[in-house]
Amino acid sequence: METVAATGSGLVVALAGGVGGAKLSHGLALNGLEERLCVIVNTGDDFTLYGLHISPDLDTVLYTLAGIANPQTGWGILGDTDHTLRMIGRYGRETWFWLGDRDLATHILRTERLRAGARLTDVTAELAAALGVRARILPMCDEAVPTIVETPTGSLPFQDYFVRRRQKDTVVGVRFGGIERARPTPEVLAALDAAAVVVLCPSNPIVSIGPIVAVPGLRERLRALHVPIVAVSPIVAGQALKGPADRMLATLGHEVSPRGVARLYADFLDGIVIDNQDAALAPVIEELGIAVYVTDTVMRSEADRQRLAAETLAFAERLGKRVEQG
Amino acid sequence: METVAATGSGLVVALAGGVGGAKLSHGLALNGLEERLCVIVNTGDDFTLYGLHISPDLDTVLYTLAGIANPQTGWGILGDTDHTLRMIGRYGRETWFWLGDRDLATHILRTERLRAGARLTDVTAELAAALGVRARILPMCDEAVPTIVETPTGSLPFQDYFVRRRQKDTVVGVRFGGIERARPTPEVLAALDAAAVVVLCPSNPIVSIGPIVAVPGLRERLRALHVPIVAVSPIVAGQALKGPADRMLATLGHEVSPRGVARLYADFLDGIVIDNQDAALAPVIEELGIAVYVTDTVMRSEADRQRLAAETLAFAERLGKRVEQG
Repeated sequence: METVAATGSGLVVALAGGVGGAKLSHGLALNGLEERLCVIVNTGDDFTLYGLHISPDLDTVLYTLAGIANPQTGWGILGDTDHTLRMIGRYGRETWFWLGDRDLATHILRTERLRAGARLTDVTAELAAALGVRARILPMCDEAVPTIVETPTGSLPFQDYFVRRRQKDTVVGVRFGGIERARPTPEVLAALDAAAVVVLCPSNPIVSIGPIVAVPGLRERLRALHVPIVAVSPIVAGQALKGPADRMLATLGHEVSPRGVARLYADFLDGIVIDNQDAALAPVIEELGIAVYVTDTVMRSEADRQRLAAETLAFAERLGKRVEQG
Repeated sequence: METVAATGSGLVVALAGGVGGAKLSHGLALNGLEERLCVIVNTGDDFTLYGLHISPDLDTVLYTLAGIANPQTGWGILGDTDHTLRMIGRYGRETWFWLGDRDLATHILRTERLRAGARLTDVTAELAAALGVRARILPMCDEAVPTIVETPTGSLPFQDYFVRRRQKDTVVGVRFGGIERARPTPEVLAALDAAAVVVLCPSNPIVSIGPIVAVPGLRERLRALHVPIVAVSPIVAGQALKGPADRMLATLGHEVSPRGVARLYADFLDGIVIDNQDAALAPVIEELGIAVYVTDTVMRSEADRQRLAAETLAFAERLGKRVEQG
C-alpha cells in the first residue's frame, strides 16, 4: 500500500453524496486521516416528512463515520427498528420513506434546532460531535436547494422519484430549486482553502456531486485550486454500482462510462480513478487532460474502503508533484 | 348492576385528566356508551419537548379508549419501546420524560398538523378516528394554557415538577398561563349543551380538572346546566390513588378528603361518588348540598371501570329524577 503522508498537514476534502460517498469518506478516515478529513455533502436530497427535516446524505455520512451505519443497506442505523413508522402508518399516513426509530432521533433533533434558527452546518457539527465523529461533515450550503427531477410526465421532488417511485421514471432534466440564491458556507470555503487534496467520491455525478458543484461560486473555487482534485468513478463497466446514475447519465445525453463522468468534471479535475474493468478507457480519458489510475474500485468491505482511499490519495499525491514540477 | 338507559339520548360528558380520567372514561365506553361519550380533557400539562408538542392527558385518554394503553403504567402504549429516546440520549440530550417509539408517532403527527395551522381539537379528532375511537375526545381549549407550579424556591413548568423532579417540591400555588385568553371551543360548548349527564372523573382536582373548569366561561356553563353533574373522588382514605393530589390539596389549604374535593366543585356539583373507606364522610358532604354515593371506587381491572361507570351513571340518573321532581 502506498503512503498518504505526502498530503502533508492540509485537509483532505471529500465531496460526497450518500452511500458511495460515505464509504470512501470512511476509507479516508480509516487511513488515519479523520482529524484532517472534511466531507462536503449534498443536501439536494433533503426534504420534509411528517414535519421533520430529513437530510439523507448527511445522515448516511454521519452514521458511517460514527461507525453505526447499517452495513446491509449502507444507509440507516445498524439494528434499527421501525415502530414509530408503523404507528404513523396506523394513523393512516403513507410510509414509503423508511425511517428507523434510532434514526428519527437525528431528524427530530435536527428539526428542533433548525426551527430555533440554527444553521444546518452547526446542527450537523453538533450531531457529529455527539456521536464522536472527529471528521468535519459539512452540508454543501445552509440554504434549501431541493433537487427536482424532470420526467416526460412532469416534475418530481427528488425523494418522490428516488424512493416513492423507485426511479422508474425517465429523467429528462434535473434542477436544484433556489440554487441561484445558495452560497458556499464559510466552513466550505475555509475547507477548500485549507485543502491538500480534493476527492470526488463515487457518488451520482448528476444528483449527488452535481448539486454541490452547482452551488454558485463552488465550481469556480475548485477550478482555481492549486491542489490535486481527483474523482473516483461511480460508473463501472457501464453500470452504476448503486442507484440510477447510469440511466440518468444516458437519458441526459452523457456517456455511461468513466469518461462520461470525467467530462462532467473536466474543467477542474486532475485525475480519475477507474475500475480494472474499464482499463481500456484510460487513453481516451487522458485525452481530456485528466490523469487516470486503474484499480479495483468496488468497495465490498471496510478493507476495500481503506485500500481504495489510500490508492486514491497516493494517486493524487503523484499528481500534486507533477503540478509542482510542471 | 343498575341501568344506564335513563341517560337517554343525550351525551355523556366526562371531564378528565390522565390515567384516572382515562380509566373512568373507558368504563363509560364499556357500558355501550362510546357513541354518546364525549371526554373533555385537560391540556394544562401540554408542553414542547425536542420541538414536539406533547399532550400527555389527551394521549392517555386516546390510547385508553383505543384499547392500546399500557395497562401497567396507565399511560403510553402497550409494548412500546424507547429506541428513539435512547438515541436522543446518545446525542447528549436529557431524557427524563419517557417517550415510546410508537407514542412518538402521535407527537410527530400532532406537531406537524399544529404547525400547519390546524386546531388541537381537529388534530385530536383525526388521531382518534384513525385509531377507531368512536367517542369524542376534546381538548378543553385550543389555546396553550401551561400549568405553572409555584414552589417555595420558585416557579416550575408542570412537567418539570411532575416528571423531572418527581413531585418532590411543595406546591404553594398553581396557575394556568394565559388562561384569561383561553375560551371553551365550540365543540366543548356544544357537548355541554347536548349533555344528559356530566361526570368529573377521579382526576387531580387542582391540576387536571382545575384547568378545565378554569377556562373562562366553562364553570359558569356547568353552573347553569340542568342535567346532573357528578364527580368521582380521586381521594380515598386521605390519599390520592395516583399522583400528588393529596399533598397538593394539603399544601394549598384544602382538606385531603372527598369533602375537600366536593368543596372545590360545590358551586356546580350535584353528587359525588366516594369510596367505601370514606363512608363516614357522607353526612358532612351532604351538608354541602351534594348527594353522596358510596361504593368501591378503586379501578384495578376493566370490570372495575365498567362497574364504577355504571354505578356513577345510575347515581346521576337518580339525581336527575330528583332535580326534575324538585
